[in-house]
Amino acid sequence: MGKGESLVEEKEISQAVISRLPRYLRYLDDLKNEGIERISSKELSNRMHVTASQIRQDFNNFGGFGQQGYGYNVNYLYNEISKILGLNKTHNFIIVGAGNLGRALGGYLNFERRGFYFLGMFDINPERVGTKIRDVSVMHVDELQDFVKKNNVDIAVLTLPKNSAVEVADVLVSCGVKAIWNFAHVDLNVPEDVIVENVHLSDSLMKLSYNLNCHEILKED
Amino acid sequence: MGKGESLVEEKEISQAVISRLPRYLRYLDDLKNEGIERISSKELSNRMHVTASQIRQDFNNFGGFGQQGYGYNVNYLYNEISKILGLNKTHNFIIVGAGNLGRALGGYLNFERRGFYFLGMFDINPERVGTKIRDVSVMHVDELQDFVKKNNVDIAVLTLPKNSAVEVADVLVSCGVKAIWNFAHVDLNVPEDVIVENVHLSDSLMKLSYNLNCHEILKED
Repeated sequence: MGKGESLVEEKEISQAVISRLPRYLRYLDDLKNEGIERISSKELSNRMHVTASQIRQDFNNFGGFGQQGYGYNVNYLYNEISKILGLNKTHNFIIVGAGNLGRALGGYLNFERRGFYFLGMFDINPERVGTKIRDVSVMHVDELQDFVKKNNVDIAVLTLPKNSAVEVADVLVSCGVKAIWNFAHVDLNVPEDVIVENVHLSDSLMKLSYNLNCHEILKED
Repeated sequence: MGKGESLVEEKEISQAVISRLPRYLRYLDDLKNEGIERISSKELSNRMHVTASQIRQDFNNFGGFGQQGYGYNVNYLYNEISKILGLNKTHNFIIVGAGNLGRALGGYLNFERRGFYFLGMFDINPERVGTKIRDVSVMHVDELQDFVKKNNVDIAVLTLPKNSAVEVADVLVSCGVKAIWNFAHVDLNVPEDVIVENVHLSDSLMKLSYNLNCHEILKED
């Protein structure tokens, strides 16, 4: 397949479909661990509590991954979805903000298993500089620019207060970082060619609160 | 308005709309801090990088919040959206899993500002039991059931490994907890009347990875 073709296909896939791929991967990982080699969309649908039709529609975005009726090859499906998500490549990441959240993310060995390598960590607080997360020492944020220029940094994780996050994002972008995983409670204004994936924890808690209150109103009724 | 009416209205609002409300609230908070009293959908649209029509459509789900042209009253809009999200009430939460992520969530004073009060924290690791996050001591998970029965716990936050998360969720549900904020890398099977809001960090990182790789393919082309 020519590059042009694959490009067009990938551009047409909605972010909603992409958001569901990691969940498929999680279930396929479990199936592999259970030694299950083939699974029908019906069985997968029962496990995942989504309709079989949704699964087939999602998979059809990528050519279908195998025959209906005969079922999907678990290993093949796992590998194909991994490739789509770029997990067959390695990515280096740094974390800016060495508070509890930053330390939690730096400590997850599971990210490494997926090809995400933790290269460096930065903070402005002198008490944190020099401490270690796994075998990575926290550096002062003054060293950030130099580090990014000398190392191959694919992803910067921002776990710092909102005002500093905006400033740091600008520095990172000027050094050529192309992807930001943003945990700061602010939307970053970066050029269009920089990928930003936001995790706004307060937003998620508020959504929970909405649903909880909706539910309470229902019960009172 | 009768309860029946408000109920019907709330049930019809999609989760996509609800997911956007906290972001509106964030921008309104900034506007309040800047001393801005009124804002048109056009100006809000410019700040938030969404279309004015999207804003009006979203707000129309809740009756519109004020006149087009004349603009929205920032304070009123902030308060109304807060109420819709249940932020005019207080909610008590506990955290199960006193690792870095749990400690990070327990330490966020911003949650308290929104009416979410941190009541207790639990872990199985004896080295963590007895340590403190703000003025909350980590208790042993054996005390969880008793604590939930004696206290008014609205939300349980799960920041623990996937296998333990499934077990702990069952215990919490059996004690009457009605909402779970789940950070464990697993989908919980809980009764339908229990609200679960998932934050699957790996899924978010994989989505970032997909977009980064898509983008690299584009650049190579």
